[in-house]
Amino acid sequence: MATLLSKTSGLLFPTTTRTNTTYPITILSYFRPRLIQTKKPVSLQCSYHGEYIPKHIQHPNYVRVFDTTLRDGEQSPGASMTPLQKLNIARQLAKLGVDIIEVGYPASNKADLETIKMIAHEVGNTTNDDGRGLVICALARCTKDDIDKAWECLRDAKYPRIHIFLATSEIHMKYKLKMSKEEVVEKAKSAVEYARSLGFDDIEFSPKTREVIKAGATTVNIADTVGYNYPREFGQLITDIKTNTPGIENVIISTHCHNDLGLATANTLEGAYSGARQVEVTINGIGERAGNASSEEVIMAIKCKEELFDGLYTGVTGIHIAATSKMVEEYTGMQVQPHKAIVGANVFSHESGIHQDGMLKNKSTYEIISPEDIGLHRPDEFGIILGKHSGRHALKSKLSQLGYKIDETKLNELFWRFKSIAEKKKVITDKDLIGLVSD
Amino acid sequence: MATLLSKTSGLLFPTTTRTNTTYPITILSYFRPRLIQTKKPVSLQCSYHGEYIPKHIQHPNYVRVFDTTLRDGEQSPGASMTPLQKLNIARQLAKLGVDIIEVGYPASNKADLETIKMIAHEVGNTTNDDGRGLVICALARCTKDDIDKAWECLRDAKYPRIHIFLATSEIHMKYKLKMSKEEVVEKAKSAVEYARSLGFDDIEFSPKTREVIKAGATTVNIADTVGYNYPREFGQLITDIKTNTPGIENVIISTHCHNDLGLATANTLEGAYSGARQVEVTINGIGERAGNASSEEVIMAIKCKEELFDGLYTGVTGIHIAATSKMVEEYTGMQVQPHKAIVGANVFSHESGIHQDGMLKNKSTYEIISPEDIGLHRPDEFGIILGKHSGRHALKSKLSQLGYKIDETKLNELFWRFKSIAEKKKVITDKDLIGLVSD
Repeated sequence: MATLLSKTSGLLFPTTTRTNTTYPITILSYFRPRLIQTKKPVSLQCSYHGEYIPKHIQHPNYVRVFDTTLRDGEQSPGASMTPLQKLNIARQLAKLGVDIIEVGYPASNKADLETIKMIAHEVGNTTNDDGRGLVICALARCTKDDIDKAWECLRDAKYPRIHIFLATSEIHMKYKLKMSKEEVVEKAKSAVEYARSLGFDDIEFSPKTREVIKAGATTVNIADTVGYNYPREFGQLITDIKTNTPGIENVIISTHCHNDLGLATANTLEGAYSGARQVEVTINGIGERAGNASSEEVIMAIKCKEELFDGLYTGVTGIHIAATSKMVEEYTGMQVQPHKAIVGANVFSHESGIHQDGMLKNKSTYEIISPEDIGLHRPDEFGIILGKHSGRHALKSKLSQLGYKIDETKLNELFWRFKSIAEKKKVITDKDLIGLVSD
Repeated sequence: MATLLSKTSGLLFPTTTRTNTTYPITILSYFRPRLIQTKKPVSLQCSYHGEYIPKHIQHPNYVRVFDTTLRDGEQSPGASMTPLQKLNIARQLAKLGVDIIEVGYPASNKADLETIKMIAHEVGNTTNDDGRGLVICALARCTKDDIDKAWECLRDAKYPRIHIFLATSEIHMKYKLKMSKEEVVEKAKSAVEYARSLGFDDIEFSPKTREVIKAGATTVNIADTVGYNYPREFGQLITDIKTNTPGIENVIISTHCHNDLGLATANTLEGAYSGARQVEVTINGIGERAGNASSEEVIMAIKCKEELFDGLYTGVTGIHIAATSKMVEEYTGMQVQPHKAIVGANVFSHESGIHQDGMLKNKSTYEIISPEDIGLHRPDEFGIILGKHSGRHALKSKLSQLGYKIDETKLNELFWRFKSIAEKKKVITDKDLIGLVSD
């Protein structure tokens, strides 16, 4: 039975110290002159996501999160994982609250096929924390063998989905497939029909064509395979598809954006804003080349900009983001840079005096998300890191944390000695500070 | 004397093997049904950027690149650099072709003040490869002491600029400055007037107010300090400022976007699209928390989407991007993740069989930018990395590079042995392949 969590309860994200404070809009005095008031914590209610129906979502604003860390993410050069690691990630994704896990490409190799089968059997028969069943998805080309293998892997899962793809750009058709447009359309249609004949009633197809919808596809995926789109363009593309494709109202539109120009998150959000109700993402944004749209960025942006997005929401539980990110980083060896949005090591740290001063006065001056929102607990409440850009206010605060009560004259003297050490060292530790005071 | 490079010559980027091939628009058959034809290489012409005038740009589509790697970038926790490293980066930025280098915040500490002076003296009196003089900029709060120090540092440079800032969001005014709006406006105006009185005729102010423009600011900077904006919002903000601010037509609008939601690149581009003619960026996107808009992403997106952006262009020479990125990574210790757009180690590598097959048939199936465009030379023309997702086509190609001529029967046999090794190893090296054939 599905437990119920209200999307308006604010409880998909944990209550934090920031609750009931106001968030800044940067140029507040100018731009949409309002403060965003976070919702008051209310008693535990439950949101009705409803029974899973492949081609229909009960709530019009609910966006399905399709996680492809195990498939597209693992295709990153050097990122391959062991079967057990993949199983652990699938379990963690279930905890995180994604809707669909793309677990791999069964025709790629035998070990992957067995891993997919194992995950489909276990994770494909569990539920999310809020009682939703997980959809387990496998990738296939338009060939009988690929589709057979996908069915072999997934038939044990409660909600099996096949994701069939065929490249249809002119370049791909001409150079890669060496087929005419008509041949491509026919091949796509036959593949969907064959998948249905095996038992699949949840079929995603990349990309959309009216013929695959007619043949029974339930989700159509719009991929920016080479990461070349710009948000305006991509949003318009989704709008046009929504407006002009016969039968589109009976299927879910999905986005799959790559990050070659650093625009995958923006493109994905613009896709959802324009009517897509599935977003394909990976943890830490890993994937081929510059990777895929980053799960944590897309999810937190939808959360933070809920009002702008007319109430869009996902089923993800923010507090599991940090742990999931760490696990994927460790298993794949795909290091997350310190300034990676949402999950980078520096995101909740402040070294410059100007920012530290603001943070010590009110955390919302320089932070729009609390570390607790993604399940992180920082040792220093204000994220203060001392270095050569730090100011008196931060130094005094750190010394006070270490138990030193310092008057202004002493602080002044210490400050200049602190600065001269900081000019030579990247980061000043507590030990350095104790040495400084003892001198 | 300024040498001249035509913006339409295509020569700001090196001629590559990709010239005259067609680039894919992902969903070609649907979306704006056209191929983007790269320009034919033409004989060396020269573009007229013209004499530097702080508040005016001769060509309406030219976007100034304001690099703040040495100021905002260095504020990343743990990223501090030595004076010599900063000088080297400033020299490299001159080579890259940026317009303005923000070299630091003189009031922060004495060593920084001396470094800024040194860079202003040397790099502030050189020119870019195409003869443009470099603007050297220093940051200052609205205090006499900060502005005096900036003048002391910069007076030796040919084009000195001061960047004065004052936080004006309601949260910042209330909690950080503890001042009323009127007091803030008066303080800002006085600071600009004082800077002018010292000799500054190039004054950037963050953020814009009609009073600072009246007082003599030549660039107004619109900062998304906490990275909370969405491209649509940010573009609208710039449009509104352009439309509604008295005197705005006589100054340059600048954008300064942070990446807390992964949207800094998109916001910056949308700002330029909406009329901003200066973009504040850092190499590798480093900076406080989740960093700033990434220089290489913004520059390459403007280059790749020139048509969409109605002919916007910058003065940056793409071939220096890779070297500059590497230098900043090494000096700051801020590691670039393998899937970082444009400059990550994986951007021009392909492991999955599907992608490798496409690459071997035509590189434009999976790459929109050539490595040579950013000054990279990969050992393997197609960027093939062998792993468990690789297919027969890539294996055959790699073996052939190693001197082995393999028939189809032998290839089949080797392929399955190769796959069983690849299931256990993250990456298969040439040595592994030689072992495989010798067995």
